[in-house]
Amino acid sequence: MTAADFPSQPQQQYDAFKQLGLKLDMSRGKPAPEQLDLSNELMSAIAGYKSADGTDLRNYGGTIGIPEARALFGQLLDVPAAQVVVDSSASLSLMHDVIVYALLNGVPGHAPWVSQQPISFLCPVPGYDRHFSICEARGIKMINIPMTEAGPDMDLVEKLVAADASIKGMWCVPKYSNPGGVVYSDEVVARLAAMKTAAPDFRLLWDDAYRFHHLGEEKVAIAGILDACAKAGNPDRAFVFASTSKISWAGSGIAALAASPANIAWWTANSGVRSIGPDKINQLRHVALLQNPAKVEALMERHRQLLKPKFDAVLAQFDALLGQMPGVSWTRPQGGYFIDLVTPPGMAKRTVALAKEAGITLTPAGAAFPYGKDPQDSHIRIAPSFPSLDEITKAAQGIALSLRLAVAA
Amino acid sequence: MTAADFPSQPQQQYDAFKQLGLKLDMSRGKPAPEQLDLSNELMSAIAGYKSADGTDLRNYGGTIGIPEARALFGQLLDVPAAQVVVDSSASLSLMHDVIVYALLNGVPGHAPWVSQQPISFLCPVPGYDRHFSICEARGIKMINIPMTEAGPDMDLVEKLVAADASIKGMWCVPKYSNPGGVVYSDEVVARLAAMKTAAPDFRLLWDDAYRFHHLGEEKVAIAGILDACAKAGNPDRAFVFASTSKISWAGSGIAALAASPANIAWWTANSGVRSIGPDKINQLRHVALLQNPAKVEALMERHRQLLKPKFDAVLAQFDALLGQMPGVSWTRPQGGYFIDLVTPPGMAKRTVALAKEAGITLTPAGAAFPYGKDPQDSHIRIAPSFPSLDEITKAAQGIALSLRLAVAA
Repeated sequence: MTAADFPSQPQQQYDAFKQLGLKLDMSRGKPAPEQLDLSNELMSAIAGYKSADGTDLRNYGGTIGIPEARALFGQLLDVPAAQVVVDSSASLSLMHDVIVYALLNGVPGHAPWVSQQPISFLCPVPGYDRHFSICEARGIKMINIPMTEAGPDMDLVEKLVAADASIKGMWCVPKYSNPGGVVYSDEVVARLAAMKTAAPDFRLLWDDAYRFHHLGEEKVAIAGILDACAKAGNPDRAFVFASTSKISWAGSGIAALAASPANIAWWTANSGVRSIGPDKINQLRHVALLQNPAKVEALMERHRQLLKPKFDAVLAQFDALLGQMPGVSWTRPQGGYFIDLVTPPGMAKRTVALAKEAGITLTPAGAAFPYGKDPQDSHIRIAPSFPSLDEITKAAQGIALSLRLAVAA
Repeated sequence: MTAADFPSQPQQQYDAFKQLGLKLDMSRGKPAPEQLDLSNELMSAIAGYKSADGTDLRNYGGTIGIPEARALFGQLLDVPAAQVVVDSSASLSLMHDVIVYALLNGVPGHAPWVSQQPISFLCPVPGYDRHFSICEARGIKMINIPMTEAGPDMDLVEKLVAADASIKGMWCVPKYSNPGGVVYSDEVVARLAAMKTAAPDFRLLWDDAYRFHHLGEEKVAIAGILDACAKAGNPDRAFVFASTSKISWAGSGIAALAASPANIAWWTANSGVRSIGPDKINQLRHVALLQNPAKVEALMERHRQLLKPKFDAVLAQFDALLGQMPGVSWTRPQGGYFIDLVTPPGMAKRTVALAKEAGITLTPAGAAFPYGKDPQDSHIRIAPSFPSLDEITKAAQGIALSLRLAVAA
């Protein structure tokens, strides 16, 4: 479908679309049911409940995760298993708890962050709204950092962290970032690892959420942040997070944290106060399902085959309907779960409202920015994964027509 | 076996026991494998993955738990389902997080506890070591409260909370308490609900860990704390915690928090920052296994049949070997997981060390007290659940002989 198929005026085009009476929720990057089906074997993946070392996994214990799950994540993240903890069903909880422990207890060898208030985090934008919600809810100020095509604006980052000891951390989604699809270059990784920080207790929260979530043929790889930090003499700088949320089941996965031995010891001491151990049976299920990196890659290829056509459909609609519009652009991500649609300044909120009126619920405009405030009001996060291919095609039309009307009005 | 079967001198008796070369870990209240077997149906309890309302439970969402699990815990705890959140695999984590949110954000309508430092909690003793670990790790001072046979010493509790606004909370295991087996009387529950507290943001952390864990024929019931608080005009005073840890599988259960609507809203807002939702598939499994209160009671009766002989064996050995000793006593619990062995002052540590030497690992003496300090050094927590009946019988002998030697030496 092209612009020519619609009445020539933006209002008429929009009205015609609205008549379709669509009702679609595209607000979150949720896997589609067909993707979840790929891991239905989880239901019957295991017959027993003992780990390879004979431990009865039904009982209490095992705060840092079962050995086989730690080994698997070690292979997946290219980190020694001894530097991996497997815990919780979602990495967001691990990120939250790292921040809580740093706030209340301080990172190893340093005073609690609450005793050093006010403190702040650097937030590359646009970014992941749930990262920003953690900061906002727990009293950490946020400072926007513009993204480049190779990662955050490192000149600005280096300048800020060198000058301001109240900057205690930085959020990073280093690969196929949410929502911009940015892949951090080796240089960016190296500079983040090596930069001088005024705060001796500065931490990178490295959310490797899309490590295996390729959309293109190329399996993009990025430099290892833990190695880079160790080489730069800052071994304790980074916490790496990963999960199976978009590999197996989004709501019933397993999550991992990788870090230096000192950080792992600190995490283990702190998380051991909170829990007598994670759900080890679910870890065993996941080890049975995922087995090894090759099996994970094969599973992710099947995800890719389901996701790629949906992304292509959105891009085709945007090309057809928005290709000629000044000030409008969008990302063509090589992986991850999102397309970042960039509108002329001041048009994102209006577009989202018009789309809503036409039956398409999008992530609120501004959500990809700290405090929900997009300074330019120009970013809309598109999440093509959940709707069917037919629905997503229609939805992309509706979004494009909403934007055309917003700009024309 | 009676004292007469052993050589007459404590040292000889102990040495003879030590020759047996036992190796037993009785440090924690872990269910035995036979108890975990009672819930093996969890492995195959469900074939589908949708809740009654059609939600795909494999996906993200559902921060407060699936409706059927909330309804089940509502029935079990005698609380409206709307006042129940089902989350995490262990209630300890929910307790920890309530304290974290209170520290960093404050309870509804009040300043963060971290901004009101120093703060303290009342801790009935002996009590649950992991409660005390949370306070110690997160910077909350602890004040010992002696237990009576009907619950904590309420005259002292009322006096302290009325006078000291820095007292922000109190730990309560109201039924078959860990380790004393104490059951709070209706009067104690009513006084806790109604007492005047200098701190307007005072909270009871009500760990209903052993609600269904009877050892005797009588299923002891206690007064409902949420009702009592509401009637007394303090509706937001209590957070109630429960889990299936010692009903189904200790490491892979589900947990619940029940509280006033205001507290539930507060919890939901705070936990929604930490997580996109708990493992809902495991909640569905548990609903399929446990179904309703009658089914839970029937399952708990099977647990009781496995546990009761072990408790009886310990009590029989203590009767035989310690019955005549001045200053030595022990509880005969009607439920729960522990026997509290009370030694003459200054004898608990020595006894635990001697037992260790003879191959029996006990909970460290003092663990049932804040900071691990039993002021009288006179309490030893006995956990009969995990070892086999034969092992626990021998272990009880060994503990008794260790105590006899400690006293004689």
